[in-house]
Amino acid sequence: MSRTLWIDDDGTLRTLDQTALPFERREFALRTPDDCERAIRTMQVRGAPLIGAVGAYGLALALRADASDAGLRRAHERLAAARPTAVNLRWALDRGRERVAPADPALRAQLAWDEAGRICDDDVACNASIGEQGARLLRALAERRAALAGMTGTDGITLNLLTHCNAGRIATIDHGTALAPVYRLHEEGVPVHVWVDETRPRNQGAALTAWELGARGVPHTVITDNAGGLLMMQGRVDAVIVGCDRVAANGDVANKVGTYLKALAAHDNGVPFYVACPVSTIDAAMPDGVSIPIEERAAREVTHLEGRLDDGSPASVRIVPEGSAVANPAFDITPARLVTALITEHGVCEASASGLRAVLACAARRVGPAGAP
Amino acid sequence: MSRTLWIDDDGTLRTLDQTALPFERREFALRTPDDCERAIRTMQVRGAPLIGAVGAYGLALALRADASDAGLRRAHERLAAARPTAVNLRWALDRGRERVAPADPALRAQLAWDEAGRICDDDVACNASIGEQGARLLRALAERRAALAGMTGTDGITLNLLTHCNAGRIATIDHGTALAPVYRLHEEGVPVHVWVDETRPRNQGAALTAWELGARGVPHTVITDNAGGLLMMQGRVDAVIVGCDRVAANGDVANKVGTYLKALAAHDNGVPFYVACPVSTIDAAMPDGVSIPIEERAAREVTHLEGRLDDGSPASVRIVPEGSAVANPAFDITPARLVTALITEHGVCEASASGLRAVLACAARRVGPAGAP
Repeated sequence: MSRTLWIDDDGTLRTLDQTALPFERREFALRTPDDCERAIRTMQVRGAPLIGAVGAYGLALALRADASDAGLRRAHERLAAARPTAVNLRWALDRGRERVAPADPALRAQLAWDEAGRICDDDVACNASIGEQGARLLRALAERRAALAGMTGTDGITLNLLTHCNAGRIATIDHGTALAPVYRLHEEGVPVHVWVDETRPRNQGAALTAWELGARGVPHTVITDNAGGLLMMQGRVDAVIVGCDRVAANGDVANKVGTYLKALAAHDNGVPFYVACPVSTIDAAMPDGVSIPIEERAAREVTHLEGRLDDGSPASVRIVPEGSAVANPAFDITPARLVTALITEHGVCEASASGLRAVLACAARRVGPAGAP
Repeated sequence: MSRTLWIDDDGTLRTLDQTALPFERREFALRTPDDCERAIRTMQVRGAPLIGAVGAYGLALALRADASDAGLRRAHERLAAARPTAVNLRWALDRGRERVAPADPALRAQLAWDEAGRICDDDVACNASIGEQGARLLRALAERRAALAGMTGTDGITLNLLTHCNAGRIATIDHGTALAPVYRLHEEGVPVHVWVDETRPRNQGAALTAWELGARGVPHTVITDNAGGLLMMQGRVDAVIVGCDRVAANGDVANKVGTYLKALAAHDNGVPFYVACPVSTIDAAMPDGVSIPIEERAAREVTHLEGRLDDGSPASVRIVPEGSAVANPAFDITPARLVTALITEHGVCEASASGLRAVLACAARRVGPAGAP
C-alpha cells in the first residue's frame, strides 16, 4: 500500500505506528475517535498533513456514535486538543465540521468520512505537484552542474541533496513535501543521493527519513546534525531541501530546530536552499519569523534516547547527567534572505512578501484538488 | 583531587575513566605501560593534553622494565600508535624521549617520570593563563552589555556562553582550555551560565562538559546541537567559546564537527566567537583549513548511542536502520573570518597569519612553564 493512511477491504482505517520505525513496520487500525486521538497524542502518527487527515477521520468516527450538534462540537474540541500546536489538525477538523454542520445528523457521519477522504486526496495531489515543481528545479541544477563539468547531458551526474527532519511520505498521505521531488527524480531514473540529518532530539531523520528512503531504494547516508556544514564546504551537497511548519508573510520559515544552521551553511557555500511549502502552511497574518511562537518540548526528548538493544528489544537510555538543566526548543526560524526559493503546489516563488502574494493569487484562481486550502 | 591525572600517596598514577561519565565517577590506576596504552586506545582518557600526559607517564613506566635504547624505542612506538591522530601524544612522547635519551639507562625511568610531571605542570600553567586571558575578554563583554543596558557596574548581568564538545578540565590536566575562562569567572563570583551543546556523535557535551560544570556548580543547560542558532537569534547567547584541535597558519580552525555551524550562527547574529588555543595547537606548516585532513570515524558512533537504562545499567542502543549508509567526519573547519579572536596562553590574537606570527614570537621570547611548546 502506497498511502500512509488507507482503508482496507472491510472498511477499516489503517496506518503505520511511527513510534516503532525504523525497526518494525507495525500497522494498526483506527476504529474509534479514541484511537485517532491517542495516535496523534502519542505521535504514532505525526507530520502536519497526516495528523490533519487522521483528525478528520476521527471526527467522522465520532459522528457515527453521536451526530448531534453537541456531539459534533465535543468531537471537534477533543480531537483539536490532541496536539494543539499542529495548525493542520485544526484546519482539517474545521473543514470537516463546515462540511457536515448544515446537513441532517443522519447523513453527517458519511459526509465527514467522505470529506476526510477528499482531504487525503487533496494532500496527495498537492504533494505530487510539489514533487513536479521541485524536480524541475533540481533537474535544472543537474544540468548546470553538467554544463560546468563540460558535459552535454547529465549522464553520470548524481545529485547530492541534504534534508533535515522528515518531510517525507510518512509525514503526509503520500509523496511527502521535501522528499516529493526526490522520489520523482528517482522514479525518472535521475541519480540522486540524500544526506539525511539525524535530527536530534527526536531523530526523525535517522529513524523516519532513512527508513522511507531505504524502503523505496533511494541511495542515502545518515549523518549527525553537526556534519552538514563540512559536507557543503567540501562541495558534496548540490542543494538542501526541507519542509516547513509555517511561513510568515515576509518569507521567513519556521521549521524543525537546526534548519537555520543548515541554511547558513548553504548560503556560506553557495548551495541552493529550497523549502517545500504547501500553500496551507503560509500564514499571511504572521508578519515575520521572529513573531512565530517557538514550542518548547519535554526535557526527556533531550535527556533520553529511544533505540533497540542488540537483541532487537526497544529501550530508552539516559544520556544527560541527572543534575543538568535542559532546554528543548522544537523549531527555529530561517530568515527569508537565506531561502533560495519556496516550492509550493502552485509554483516556485521567492521567499518574500511579493513572492508569497503571487503564489497565493495563483492558488485563489485555481480550481481542483491542488487548489484546496 | 583537582587534577584529572594524579599520583596518590603510594606513588600510583591514577585518573578517571571517562567512558563511565557522566553516570559514574570511576577512578582507576595506571600501573603499567599497557594500562596507559589501553586507556588511550579505549578513550578512557581523551582530550589531546591529557592523552599526551598519559603517554609520557606510560613511557616512564615502560623504562622501569627496560631502559635500554631498544626498550625506549619500542615503548615510544607502541604508545604513539595508541591514537595516531592525536598530535599531542607524539609531542609528549618525543619530549620524554629527548629528555632521557642522552642519560644513563639506570637514570632514565626516573627522568622520564619527572618529565611527565613537568608536562602536566606546563599544561596546568598554560590553561591557567588561557583562563586569565579569556576571563578578561569576557569581563569586558559583560561590561559592554551592562553599559548598553545603562548600568554602571555588571551586577545582575549573567554572561551566557555557548560551548561545543568538551574542552574542559577533563580534556586536560586541569582548568581546561575553552572552559578555563568560565571557571575563572565563576570563581571570581561573576554570574555565568553555559549552554552545553550535546555534541553528537560521541556526546562529549552532554556527557562530559555537563558533568564537569555540574561538579563545580557552574550553572548550565544542555541543548541539542540544533538549538544554538535559535538561541543566538533570540539574543540568549553573549559569546561562543570552543577549543580547537589544530589552527592553520592563516587562522582557520579545525575543531569537533559542528563548530563551523555555530561560528556561522554567531557571525550572523553579531555574537563573538572565541577559540581557546594553546600555542601547541598552532600548525604553522599547514597553510589553511581546507588542507587539514578530516578524520572519518567509525559508523557505530552514529548508528548506536551509549547511555543508562532506568535501572542505571549501561546500554548501547541502535538508532539508525540496518540498511542505511552512514558518514561520520569527526572535525570541521571554521574559516578564520568567522573567528573573533584566538585565546592563547601568550595572549589574545586575531585569527590571521599576522596575529599568529605575533603570538608565536611572543611565545618564543618567553621563558617559564607557560612558554613550553
